[in-house]
Amino acid sequence: MADKRRSFYGWGFEQDAVSVDEMAWFEGTWAKLFKVDGFEPAPMPSESEIDLRAPRMAIPKTLQAFCTAEKYDRLFHSYGASVHDLARMIHHRDFSNPPDAVAYVRDEADIQAVLDWCGSNDLAAIPFGGGSSVVGGVNPPSDERYRGTVTINLGKLNKVLEIDKTSQAARVQAGVLGPDLENQLRASGLTMRFFLQAWEFSSLGGWIATRAAGHFATVYTQIDDHVESLRVVTPEGLIASRRVPASGAGPNPDRLFLGSEGTLGIITEAWVRLHRRPTIRLATTVRFGDYEQAVAAVREITQAGLYPANARLLERSEAAFTEAGDGSADVLVLTFESADHPLEPWMDRALEICGDHGGEWDSEALSQAESQRSGAAGNWRNKFLRGPYLREHAIARGVMRDTVESCITWDRYLDFQDQVKRRTLEAIREVTGREGTCTVRFTHLYPDGPAPYFTWHALGDKAALVEQFWAIKSAASQAMIDAGGTITHHHALGRDHRTWYDQERPDLFAEGIKAVKRRFDPKAVLNPGILVDPD
Amino acid sequence: MADKRRSFYGWGFEQDAVSVDEMAWFEGTWAKLFKVDGFEPAPMPSESEIDLRAPRMAIPKTLQAFCTAEKYDRLFHSYGASVHDLARMIHHRDFSNPPDAVAYVRDEADIQAVLDWCGSNDLAAIPFGGGSSVVGGVNPPSDERYRGTVTINLGKLNKVLEIDKTSQAARVQAGVLGPDLENQLRASGLTMRFFLQAWEFSSLGGWIATRAAGHFATVYTQIDDHVESLRVVTPEGLIASRRVPASGAGPNPDRLFLGSEGTLGIITEAWVRLHRRPTIRLATTVRFGDYEQAVAAVREITQAGLYPANARLLERSEAAFTEAGDGSADVLVLTFESADHPLEPWMDRALEICGDHGGEWDSEALSQAESQRSGAAGNWRNKFLRGPYLREHAIARGVMRDTVESCITWDRYLDFQDQVKRRTLEAIREVTGREGTCTVRFTHLYPDGPAPYFTWHALGDKAALVEQFWAIKSAASQAMIDAGGTITHHHALGRDHRTWYDQERPDLFAEGIKAVKRRFDPKAVLNPGILVDPD
Repeated sequence: MADKRRSFYGWGFEQDAVSVDEMAWFEGTWAKLFKVDGFEPAPMPSESEIDLRAPRMAIPKTLQAFCTAEKYDRLFHSYGASVHDLARMIHHRDFSNPPDAVAYVRDEADIQAVLDWCGSNDLAAIPFGGGSSVVGGVNPPSDERYRGTVTINLGKLNKVLEIDKTSQAARVQAGVLGPDLENQLRASGLTMRFFLQAWEFSSLGGWIATRAAGHFATVYTQIDDHVESLRVVTPEGLIASRRVPASGAGPNPDRLFLGSEGTLGIITEAWVRLHRRPTIRLATTVRFGDYEQAVAAVREITQAGLYPANARLLERSEAAFTEAGDGSADVLVLTFESADHPLEPWMDRALEICGDHGGEWDSEALSQAESQRSGAAGNWRNKFLRGPYLREHAIARGVMRDTVESCITWDRYLDFQDQVKRRTLEAIREVTGREGTCTVRFTHLYPDGPAPYFTWHALGDKAALVEQFWAIKSAASQAMIDAGGTITHHHALGRDHRTWYDQERPDLFAEGIKAVKRRFDPKAVLNPGILVDPD
Repeated sequence: MADKRRSFYGWGFEQDAVSVDEMAWFEGTWAKLFKVDGFEPAPMPSESEIDLRAPRMAIPKTLQAFCTAEKYDRLFHSYGASVHDLARMIHHRDFSNPPDAVAYVRDEADIQAVLDWCGSNDLAAIPFGGGSSVVGGVNPPSDERYRGTVTINLGKLNKVLEIDKTSQAARVQAGVLGPDLENQLRASGLTMRFFLQAWEFSSLGGWIATRAAGHFATVYTQIDDHVESLRVVTPEGLIASRRVPASGAGPNPDRLFLGSEGTLGIITEAWVRLHRRPTIRLATTVRFGDYEQAVAAVREITQAGLYPANARLLERSEAAFTEAGDGSADVLVLTFESADHPLEPWMDRALEICGDHGGEWDSEALSQAESQRSGAAGNWRNKFLRGPYLREHAIARGVMRDTVESCITWDRYLDFQDQVKRRTLEAIREVTGREGTCTVRFTHLYPDGPAPYFTWHALGDKAALVEQFWAIKSAASQAMIDAGGTITHHHALGRDHRTWYDQERPDLFAEGIKAVKRRFDPKAVLNPGILVDPD
């Protein structure tokens, strides 16, 4: 039902393959990393080789105009984009639990009709934006209470409906993907600038439902702070909040749906804050000989009220891997942006702080107009954007490359990152019998603490990749919880993080969410298995 | 039960009376305003003249160590600090619905014990921090379902328990009042800097429960953004959230209690973000000949990423009244603060924006170290801090001086303020048969819109002040809702704002809150009449 078809098992459009050169570079890197001569990639799955279970229910006549049970659509909506999703597709050809139907809803009435159908027939309803979930957010449940699954694809709700240039805000349908959103905003000179790694294939509604975090490292980090108001369709009716910049009138209704992950209702529309397109940028990289000093510098910058757009501290081994550094120093990618004023005083003070902590910066980069796209910062940026495209190829070779991310106060950070890295590396060793890597960077920063982002690599056994992945992921996740962090700063919960979410959130609060869920979704059709279970 | 006794009917401590000179100044101002020769103030009530209803229930032996039914304590907890609260006390000597007991709880176990007592005996429990509510947040209910009222005074939970200087945060008991909090923080060099007008007599827990807003006009406006984690005692048990700077793990538990106004649980403790005490300040006032241009300048500053600590635009008539201006120009009180860096580039750019809109600033103030405490800005500041002390004296003279405040996007602001002022002035004229005033300033600013704050004055009939006040307040409030704003940006809901809150919040969301309330507070003992009613 789309012009360019998305790959049903991997990242992006079918034609946007990874190039031979790019693949060779990565294979070389991985071979060196794991001390192997080469790889024998498993072949990618093809539609024709897969026998799909027949739909477990027929689509009612009244819904046939926008619901389908076509094989491609069911295949494409069978999984998100986690390592174990990909491993199940590539190594096990496991498409045993596809949705039985996919609803390409055109408006709120369509959504309500599908939810009614689900409620009357013991069907699960899975909201689906871009399908980029790395945490099992869009997988059909295997719960026996449901006689079938309908995935609700929001892709047709992709319009910017209204732009308020004075207030710098827009009313936007929730199914729009990142690039389409920015294209529709472009003529206004405004931008949402919510450039998460999955930007190309994730939706505004998905960002809101999962509390994603975007481009800005400070102040406007999470989507929460970009939302003025929401429209949400629940099985029991519509909830539309009032559009105001802020209010003190009771608990904020939007905050109940921010992070609700499709379990309390389906977000159809939002008024969101925009930014003027930045016209002035200053960017450089700062090298630190001592990691603790680098952390102290970033903390001081964050607590100084300077609000850099970016202040990503890459630990030296991570910097080396992404070619943002040579491995001899920790690297801070530091960027200030403005649509209003020259930034030298801001950057000068931030660099002064870096200097106080032994940092040495690239002065030349400061005089380059597009320095964040070239040099060390540019290398890092390119690797960041291409990352998702590589995943399926890594997994086909038995290479697991995954990330866990958290947030923790500064006073506990060094101990926290020590523990997470140690326990992740131990698990890799134990599970795969081979050394792996686990490195850390900061993605977002708060005055009281950073959001650390851990990337790990392990070479596993292709036949056992799912179990191996889970063992390592579990060790890393439990380490984050044990050391006082959150199970996720912006990757969301999905089904994959339930074990640790259940340890993190207060029990009685979960009872409160259950009570809301019973009121909004009494038949429990929405995204089963996520957040809370009905009693 | 306190060393210095608070006035049971008015603001502050009994000995901190308004001086004769101060009173003369205000009487003069009011006489000029309402074109009258003078005033005959009603005498203030005294404890001895009031006959109090006997307590409707006895305090159980197990609670007698911290619960009392003393007359003063019951009187003091009978009202908050709204105009109609004061009018009922001063003009009607109406103390007909006091709490039957006051519990000075010492720890969470005491709170749980009181809630258990209330639950088993059909008693209402009213959480009480500083008692500064101007919206009926602490008044005992007149609901017949309750056989009595117990006010839970949190004043003994007033300790800073832990300070984390690295992360700039503290763990604080919820009953602490503003000055006590700052005193306990002082040695650390850190400050919460949450200087709302009721700062002296409002508590951290109250700020959180009512979503108060503090000192900073931008970025760190509402208490919401200062909270790392909470401890809340509900009738069904404790909810303690995890201390992290940010998380994407499901709906934020803290956000359910921020704005819950004591209806879902009693906040006992919070980890809150602090700031380093500012060492560098730049402050000035900017005069604008044209209000629309002044608004445009403030909007541009707010959207520029400059983040001033203060940018309070006083409409010319309001500036004149508080002696921040002579009435010939609108006045912007503009302040930048830092504990880190010189602020000239920030202020220069903000003033350049003002200049583009015809603003003329006080250059001399920029070179004064404490300019925000002197000159026009200083005059404004003094009037602001003394405001609450004047209220009872105004009301004794039949002078109603009240405020309504909201938040609205920039595109609708000018129309919004027109409508609110017009309908408020009409109501004053109609209700009192006399002209009054209604002026506006900005208290807090967002990139997408300001928080306008309206002050109105009317001279009423002392015998009918309560009804007259309500008629005017209702007109102003309905105007804010009709024009698209929120019923409150930071004054809270209380019982007084229910009519407009019910229009503002989505109906089905209220059903969700009710469901949570049933789960946390199944006997509905907590703060009846606020937020939602049980079915």
